[in-house]
Amino acid sequence: MKILVINCGSSSLKYQLIDMTDESVIAKGLCERIGIEGSKLTHQPAGKDKYVVENPMPDHTVAIQMVMDALQDPEHGVIKSTDEISAIGHRVLHAGTVYSESCVVNEDVKRVVRECFDLGPLHNPANLMGIEACEKAMPGKKNVAVWDTAFGMAMPEKAYMYAIPHEYYEKYSIRRYGFHGTSHMFVSGEAIKFGGLDPKTAKVIVCHLGNGASISASIGGKCVDTSMGLTPLEGLIMGTRSGDIDPTVVQFICNKEGKTVDEVLNILNKKSGVLGMSGGISSDFRDIETAAKEGNHLAEVALEAFVYRVAKYIGAYTAAMNGVDAIAFTAGVGENDKATRKNVCEYLGYLGVKIDDEANDVRGKNTVISAADSKVKVMLIPTNEELAIARETKRLTE
Amino acid sequence: MKILVINCGSSSLKYQLIDMTDESVIAKGLCERIGIEGSKLTHQPAGKDKYVVENPMPDHTVAIQMVMDALQDPEHGVIKSTDEISAIGHRVLHAGTVYSESCVVNEDVKRVVRECFDLGPLHNPANLMGIEACEKAMPGKKNVAVWDTAFGMAMPEKAYMYAIPHEYYEKYSIRRYGFHGTSHMFVSGEAIKFGGLDPKTAKVIVCHLGNGASISASIGGKCVDTSMGLTPLEGLIMGTRSGDIDPTVVQFICNKEGKTVDEVLNILNKKSGVLGMSGGISSDFRDIETAAKEGNHLAEVALEAFVYRVAKYIGAYTAAMNGVDAIAFTAGVGENDKATRKNVCEYLGYLGVKIDDEANDVRGKNTVISAADSKVKVMLIPTNEELAIARETKRLTE
Repeated sequence: MKILVINCGSSSLKYQLIDMTDESVIAKGLCERIGIEGSKLTHQPAGKDKYVVENPMPDHTVAIQMVMDALQDPEHGVIKSTDEISAIGHRVLHAGTVYSESCVVNEDVKRVVRECFDLGPLHNPANLMGIEACEKAMPGKKNVAVWDTAFGMAMPEKAYMYAIPHEYYEKYSIRRYGFHGTSHMFVSGEAIKFGGLDPKTAKVIVCHLGNGASISASIGGKCVDTSMGLTPLEGLIMGTRSGDIDPTVVQFICNKEGKTVDEVLNILNKKSGVLGMSGGISSDFRDIETAAKEGNHLAEVALEAFVYRVAKYIGAYTAAMNGVDAIAFTAGVGENDKATRKNVCEYLGYLGVKIDDEANDVRGKNTVISAADSKVKVMLIPTNEELAIARETKRLTE
Repeated sequence: MKILVINCGSSSLKYQLIDMTDESVIAKGLCERIGIEGSKLTHQPAGKDKYVVENPMPDHTVAIQMVMDALQDPEHGVIKSTDEISAIGHRVLHAGTVYSESCVVNEDVKRVVRECFDLGPLHNPANLMGIEACEKAMPGKKNVAVWDTAFGMAMPEKAYMYAIPHEYYEKYSIRRYGFHGTSHMFVSGEAIKFGGLDPKTAKVIVCHLGNGASISASIGGKCVDTSMGLTPLEGLIMGTRSGDIDPTVVQFICNKEGKTVDEVLNILNKKSGVLGMSGGISSDFRDIETAAKEGNHLAEVALEAFVYRVAKYIGAYTAAMNGVDAIAFTAGVGENDKATRKNVCEYLGYLGVKIDDEANDVRGKNTVISAADSKVKVMLIPTNEELAIARETKRLTE
């Protein structure tokens, strides 16, 4: 059984074809600059050379057709016919308050994707284009929507309700949703398996630390709380996003700089985080670390603040669950930066957390990095959203 | 030695005359509706009847003069002459990044109060009027400014820097300041004394839970972190303030409702918190509790969310300090509502917190409410900002 996983952005399309017999990636690739001059498809069949096609892609329908062609290409392809593809799994950002589970796409699902355009203005329209392009290119095949917000839907009201007039929840569905949900679901599940924890009661905190960063708490695989909110802006300090701030900061900058609220929110999303804190050095944590090592004070503060906020969220979520069994680090920084993992855990001695420095000297593979006598199991668990989407797609279509 | 403590709001003035030999309150009172029709002074001499004067008060200078008259009134007064007043202590909201300690007022101090009008637009102008009115009414006497932001100035950069472009800190001093500082300073100090903790190393979390609510972490009396930020809007859920939200909520409401950012911030400050969450029931926690008991679901969620957020902050600050020795509850809700204290502490079993229900059945007096074998000392410590201001004033002027 082969499953095609599609992740559409507003001008991009990532894909993986996964063989579910052994969960191996048969081919993967990326369409860039869809609808913009200079479109390009980069196709990577497993064990073969990369294959680049530079052709205009006016929309996602053309992009999907190019992906189909690449997958079936006599020289660079990996399948003879699209008949070999059993189903297509789509990452879809936002299901509002409607769906809390992955769904086989039907008219109602497409209606929800459309109705949530204002909750996910950059992603939902692209996600819908991807679904409709696949329906056109492979008529009759099942498409599955795997929502980035689904994991967070298990949160209780005390965690997802903002303390604003209730009418805004009623009228506009303003609440905490949480994002990176597929990653948090996957990593918490893997952590329970790899750590040998009780799948019904395990209290797990997942730190998804990449250029976007979020953290979740779950009990028995069910989300209890998560740091991203109405949008992916809230929570941790990220590459370019501010995370938590006093909401008055928005007003203050509007009034001081004569900017509109949309302009200020754009700054908070794209020019803030460690990029902004460091005075513009970089949104890449590796560059910030290099600058900090060279003695740049703002870079040092940005790194310290990033780590400090992660530690505070771990503390907060431990209180939310009245305890924690395991902490899992994942995503770019979480999987590759042993110093960040170590620095976060240094705040957590009071929980009985102890890191084994030798075990922590690792990148990108499932590893217990805590010492044998640590009271909390600390792990590195690489995330794999594509595989999680493929598994969901298989579960719902076979 | 008698010290007059003054707390000016934009249209109000609260005062206490305190005898520092035994720290007793000789008289206290309130001027309301200053600059508005229907001004009124309510004067309460200790052990005597209330005395109400309804006279126009066009400004704070007239109000101060009326306070002087009331204090010296042959029938309702408590002093023969203002010569008996040694010095005047003023609560001043905001010192920006300039002062981190209380100061005897001089021209530079007044300049700073004035320069911080935009950081404290409702309070700093009133505070300056109060100082200048006292200078006029009692020439030659020392006035002391006790800043609500002073306690928070000890925070490290990782705690006070927002992850926004650094230029906004440079240009506009946008950072976390923290408020209720005098209360947090007073209560953390009293908790250390009353709890018999080491004044140099004690890790203390103070939960100031009133209609305004904030929480602080301090080590050896020095603030490490605190929940209010650039303004008192950030942090806990309050009577009418939202506390923490995704900053995008501001933009979302602006765009959906066609409101300006100032209008939305006004809603977040005055129509949110438990008032907004409960669908408009009340900003008073007692009313919310009553409604929740009667089965109102929104009121239940508001209360649960309020308690949950306090518990999460305690968890976060315990991580910030890598441990906690004592947790102190104070202010209206913290001093009077045993259910809230108990409910918060129920999240904290993992820290070894145990509440003694009998000891917790108490209001408004210094009490250890944790069990003898609790690993963290939990206390009720009534706050007394006026006394704290009087002590600072005495320290700086005697």
